[in-house]
Amino acid sequence: MSDFEIDAVRALLGSKPRPVGLAERRERIEAVAGHPAAPDIALETETLNSVPLEWSLAPTSDPSRVLLFFHGGGYCSGSIKSHRGMATEAGRAAGARTLAVGYRLAPEHPFPAALEDAKAAYGLLLDRGYAPSRIAVGGDSAGGGLSLALMISLREEGRALPACAWLISPWVDLEMTGASIETKAAIDPLIHKAYLQELAEAYLAGADPRNPLVSPLHADLRGLPPILTQVGSAETLLDDAVRITGKAGAADVAASLEIWPDMIHAWPLWADRVAAGRRALAAAGAFMRSKFA
Amino acid sequence: MSDFEIDAVRALLGSKPRPVGLAERRERIEAVAGHPAAPDIALETETLNSVPLEWSLAPTSDPSRVLLFFHGGGYCSGSIKSHRGMATEAGRAAGARTLAVGYRLAPEHPFPAALEDAKAAYGLLLDRGYAPSRIAVGGDSAGGGLSLALMISLREEGRALPACAWLISPWVDLEMTGASIETKAAIDPLIHKAYLQELAEAYLAGADPRNPLVSPLHADLRGLPPILTQVGSAETLLDDAVRITGKAGAADVAASLEIWPDMIHAWPLWADRVAAGRRALAAAGAFMRSKFA
Repeated sequence: MSDFEIDAVRALLGSKPRPVGLAERRERIEAVAGHPAAPDIALETETLNSVPLEWSLAPTSDPSRVLLFFHGGGYCSGSIKSHRGMATEAGRAAGARTLAVGYRLAPEHPFPAALEDAKAAYGLLLDRGYAPSRIAVGGDSAGGGLSLALMISLREEGRALPACAWLISPWVDLEMTGASIETKAAIDPLIHKAYLQELAEAYLAGADPRNPLVSPLHADLRGLPPILTQVGSAETLLDDAVRITGKAGAADVAASLEIWPDMIHAWPLWADRVAAGRRALAAAGAFMRSKFA
Repeated sequence: MSDFEIDAVRALLGSKPRPVGLAERRERIEAVAGHPAAPDIALETETLNSVPLEWSLAPTSDPSRVLLFFHGGGYCSGSIKSHRGMATEAGRAAGARTLAVGYRLAPEHPFPAALEDAKAAYGLLLDRGYAPSRIAVGGDSAGGGLSLALMISLREEGRALPACAWLISPWVDLEMTGASIETKAAIDPLIHKAYLQELAEAYLAGADPRNPLVSPLHADLRGLPPILTQVGSAETLLDDAVRITGKAGAADVAASLEIWPDMIHAWPLWADRVAAGRRALAAAGAFMRSKFA
C-alpha cells in the first residue's frame, strides 16, 4: 500500500534529472523542499557571528518556549528558507517559538563549523533568558545529527541540557553502515550511498567519521534528555533512526521511535500537501509540549 | 539515575533465592507478579476448549471494544491471575474490555498449543460480533511474541486483522541473539539467557527456533496493523523490542517503540506501586484508543 500524496511528491522529485555537483544540489533543495511559512506566522531575522537566524512565532504559541531548529541538507546544502515551512509548523505544533539556524555549510566550512554555530545559537537562547527546560532542539537529516552533537557537546561541557530533542530522518552514521542504505536504495527517491559519501567527505574534510560529534551513533548518549525520532519506512536512513534509538535507550535515555509507512526522507518538508507530514509534525509537537517545563 | 519505585520492586524480587525448576517458577510468578484487579473492575470467566478466559470491564470502558490479552511467563508459567492487574488496567487505559487468555503452557503443551488457543480466542471474539477494527491484541514477554504470531497466522489465513497490537517487553527471538542478552544481564533482575534457553526448549519441544510463529523476528511482518512496543532500558530483552520494531517498520508497518529508562521486564506488572508502570499503561491505552474504529 502506498500513499498517493507522497507519490505526488515522488513524481515532483523525479520530474527533473538528479542534480550534479554542489551548486546544482543547493539550487534543487531550494526548489523542491519546503513550502513557505503560513500567513499567520510572524518572522524575524538576525545574525550571530554572520550566521543567519530566523525567529518564528505562531499566534497560538507560548513565546517563552522555543524549538531550536537545524535544517537538513547533508551539512552542504539547505537553508532557513528551504526548511521554513517545516520549521515554523513544527514550532506551531510544539506551541513554541522556532529559532532556525542557518549554520555554515561544507565544503566551505567543514566540521566543526556547523556544531560551533549550533552551540552559539543555544548560548544565545540562554543569554536571552530562555530556560533550558523550555528549549527543545531538533531537525531533519543532518540537522538531526547536529542536534545530537550539540547535546553531547553541551553535556561534555557540563552545561544545562534542553528539555528534549526531536529528530526526523536523522543522519547519525557518516560511515553509512546501516543495512537500509542498501535494502531501501531502490525505493528512496532522495538519499543514496554515493551521495552521502560525497557529503560526508565534504563535511569531514579529513576528520574521523567515527568521531561521536560527527556520527552520534558512536557517542556515549548517557544523560541526554528524552528523544523522539521519526523516520519513513521508504528511506535509506531508516536504520540510522532504529540504531540511534536503540543506543540511546540502552544508555537509559527516554527514547521513542516512530516508523511511518511509505514515507520518504524528511517528509514533513511537504506537509502542505502530505497529510502524514502534518500528522508527524502534530505528534512531534505533542511530544515537545509534554516535555517542556 | 534510577527510579526508587522500581528499586523497591527489585528488592522484592531479590528477597528470595531464584526459583529452581518449573513448579517453583510457576509459584514465584504468582507470588511476585501482579496486583489484583481494582474494586471497580467487573470480572467474568468462561472456558473455551478447557482454556480459561477472563473478561474484565472498567466502568469507563466501551464494551464494544476489546483488548485480547496474552500474559507472559515464557510460555511455561504465568496466568490470568498473575497478570490480572496489568491486563485489567491496560483495558481501562484503552477504554476497552479485556479478554485475558489462560492459554495452555509448556512443557505439558508445547508449540503450537498456545497459538492454537490464541487463535481460538480471537475466533470467539469474531463469533460474538466484535469488529476486528475494534479489537487490539497485546501482551508482555512471551505474550507479546504470541500476539505477533497470532497476527501473522491470521494474515496467512486471509482472516481480518485486529486494529493494532501492543507489545510490552516482547520475546520475539527464541535463539536469544540480541546483544542486550549479554550487555544487560547484570542489571536485569528477572530474565537471563540460561533461563530463556530452558523456556525455549520446553516450548519448542524440537521445533525450529527460527520458525516465524515461534520467533516473529524471522517473520514477514508485511500487512500487520500498527504496533506499539514498550520496553525497559534495564532488561535483557531490550534488543528484541528494538529489532522487531525495526523489522516491522522496514516492512511498512506503522511501528512505534518506547524505551523506558531504568524499567525492568514487564514493569507494568507492578503498576500499583510504580508510577512509570501506570504511565506506560496510559501511553499504551492512548495508542489503542487512537487505532480503534
